[in-house]
Amino acid sequence: MKFISTPVKGMNDFLPEDMRLREHVLTLIKQTYATYGFDQIETPAMEHIENLTGKQGGENEKLIFKIMKRGRELEKGMETGELSDSGLRYDLTVPLARYYSNNKNNLPTPLKALQIGNVWRADKPQKGRFRQFTQCDIDIIGDSSIMAEIELVAATSKMLTRIFSEVGIREFTVHINDRRILKGMAAASGFTPEQYDDVFIILDKMDKIGLEGVKESLLAKEYPAEAVENYIRMFEKITPDLKCGEFCKDTCASSLEAKVPENIDTVMNSVTCMVEDGVHIVFDPTLVRGMSYYTGTIFEISIDGYNFSIAGGGRYDEMIGRFSNQPACACGFSIGFERIITILKDLNWKEDEGGKLRTAFLVDEKADPAKLLEVFKKATKVREQGMIVTVQPLKKNAKFQIETLEKNGYTDIKKVYNDTEL
Amino acid sequence: MKFISTPVKGMNDFLPEDMRLREHVLTLIKQTYATYGFDQIETPAMEHIENLTGKQGGENEKLIFKIMKRGRELEKGMETGELSDSGLRYDLTVPLARYYSNNKNNLPTPLKALQIGNVWRADKPQKGRFRQFTQCDIDIIGDSSIMAEIELVAATSKMLTRIFSEVGIREFTVHINDRRILKGMAAASGFTPEQYDDVFIILDKMDKIGLEGVKESLLAKEYPAEAVENYIRMFEKITPDLKCGEFCKDTCASSLEAKVPENIDTVMNSVTCMVEDGVHIVFDPTLVRGMSYYTGTIFEISIDGYNFSIAGGGRYDEMIGRFSNQPACACGFSIGFERIITILKDLNWKEDEGGKLRTAFLVDEKADPAKLLEVFKKATKVREQGMIVTVQPLKKNAKFQIETLEKNGYTDIKKVYNDTEL
Repeated sequence: MKFISTPVKGMNDFLPEDMRLREHVLTLIKQTYATYGFDQIETPAMEHIENLTGKQGGENEKLIFKIMKRGRELEKGMETGELSDSGLRYDLTVPLARYYSNNKNNLPTPLKALQIGNVWRADKPQKGRFRQFTQCDIDIIGDSSIMAEIELVAATSKMLTRIFSEVGIREFTVHINDRRILKGMAAASGFTPEQYDDVFIILDKMDKIGLEGVKESLLAKEYPAEAVENYIRMFEKITPDLKCGEFCKDTCASSLEAKVPENIDTVMNSVTCMVEDGVHIVFDPTLVRGMSYYTGTIFEISIDGYNFSIAGGGRYDEMIGRFSNQPACACGFSIGFERIITILKDLNWKEDEGGKLRTAFLVDEKADPAKLLEVFKKATKVREQGMIVTVQPLKKNAKFQIETLEKNGYTDIKKVYNDTEL
Repeated sequence: MKFISTPVKGMNDFLPEDMRLREHVLTLIKQTYATYGFDQIETPAMEHIENLTGKQGGENEKLIFKIMKRGRELEKGMETGELSDSGLRYDLTVPLARYYSNNKNNLPTPLKALQIGNVWRADKPQKGRFRQFTQCDIDIIGDSSIMAEIELVAATSKMLTRIFSEVGIREFTVHINDRRILKGMAAASGFTPEQYDDVFIILDKMDKIGLEGVKESLLAKEYPAEAVENYIRMFEKITPDLKCGEFCKDTCASSLEAKVPENIDTVMNSVTCMVEDGVHIVFDPTLVRGMSYYTGTIFEISIDGYNFSIAGGGRYDEMIGRFSNQPACACGFSIGFERIITILKDLNWKEDEGGKLRTAFLVDEKADPAKLLEVFKKATKVREQGMIVTVQPLKKNAKFQIETLEKNGYTDIKKVYNDTEL
């Protein structure tokens, strides 16, 4: 019989110490969002192949793990295209749209949803990129007001502060922008609507190539020099503590509904009063976010000093309706769960047990039943106080056994023989 | 674009109220086993097809959801048998054997493992049977002493008492037996080893057909009348508060190592002193447990008054080695998670929030930014005390909105207009 010990390519076995960190972070995520009134929901790992290949998933649709039809459905001589009727989900967004459409009548409005679950992508495995990984999405469906943005950004900032303060990190930056401001700025500069997407792709590289680089790239694409000049001049007006309303007045007010920058300023003011001092709420007109389905506010959170975002999202009022024929305004945040875990591991996160002892009774195999009974009675008493106790046979190689226990947080280790006083 | 709203056949979407119950039970399971020194571990949802079809999974091997090879690996004209290199796991036992073999050097010995995860079976969907469901297994690997049995049974009894006392159920029966006693009784009656498995299959129906029915079934199979007579007479010796040692002395002592019944009595005595009064520990010589891989103690827990078990397990000292070429003694328990959930739902389990208020601020869409700020400041204060608060726009159909919130546990619901005092 052939047997393969390693996990399937690109996937992970989690050791007890991995699980302690993952479970701890998941608990903080669940607890924090719960106080903001978010409800957990869950969908199956598998989705209909039609839903997964509906052109909403972009590049991810090429990475589907397809599941074969079963039994009689699977006839010899079928074309490979006919062999699969379902696949593993590659994100939590497609399932959310299906879920909402399926369960709308049994859900609160607005629905404040927290989804935590594995997704699968047949990606080329590489460092930090896995074929099975955990995603964590929060979404508010059915709230068209800016209260949705405020709740999402405040709750997520709070959650990150709680998690990262355990490794001494308390400084975060929340970048906020609006797709309509992006478009307004492009319009006011003289770009045409067909050019927007391409212009934004170049703008999105700002953090890597700088404003000068953006200018050169735009000119290299032979966009009108005047439009490029106007556009670049707008970004030169960026200052620290930038107010969205003032910035837009100076740059693109004519191409924009007045409500848009006003709302951004209200979101920023409200969130500021809800979060810890270390969380900086910044209007960032260079923020693009790749996904084309965003229709309004967009946001991203980064840890100060780290060069990437750990959470991002925005408003997508059209996507659910386009996908499921059940129109619904929506705003969501996706948390980089695996990235958070990686950072905490890199920073040597250690469990804080609040001074609780972990006790191990290592019992001699020759101990008689009465002694064993005494050990278990003692263990029960300690466990009833919520403490961790393990009872196990004393191994011949006790030194190694004790070292392993110490590595796993056991500080109170007792060898028990027939004549040991407990 | 075709879009299907329902989940894949036989699988479930979980509503917020479903998730509250599931998460609550999972938390109690994790917390209880943690105090007994069990560590959570996790394996990927997918396994190599070779491991899944290694003849250890019995009937479940016919129910594998197979995953298709990807990209270039998938060539037109392949036989259907060549199209898949992996599948979704159908239990947590095969993955545990692989995990142990893959990670042995980085794991404590003994390993006390808690696994919670979804498994998938392409079964015929029917009431209470799903194609994706959650399994919960606890196993101790590398402890050949009866401390393993004691810890497993005590922890599981404790866990069940904690969960079910919330719906007023406190009476459980733990049935304990040993495969070697089953065999000893059959041998002492005069059955031959080749007949054991068949005899046990009939014995296993005792709770449905009674002792008389077992006798008739054995005779109908043309087993020697004397062996059947001897065998049946043994079961007539069953009394309440049966001690294993005494029972075996009267029935099968000559065909059994003396240590076996002694150990059962020690397990029973030790567990009795560790569990609540409502948990009855019973030696049950009629307990069979279907899985052929058990080598020693077997056990099952049922709720008094319910006609089925909610947890079962036993010692399987040979299975891991046979499967992975890494011999290791092992003892485990499988918890019927979905069954527990079904019973709690049937008994109208309600969340006990310990008197905590849930507050909803329903804000008039015309409220000005200053009012909004005031609401969010107030919400932040209440949330910091660990309470649940939601802020959302006041809907036109406020009556329905409020009813839905009340259904979801919000008892403190405030409409907020510009002139509302908070």
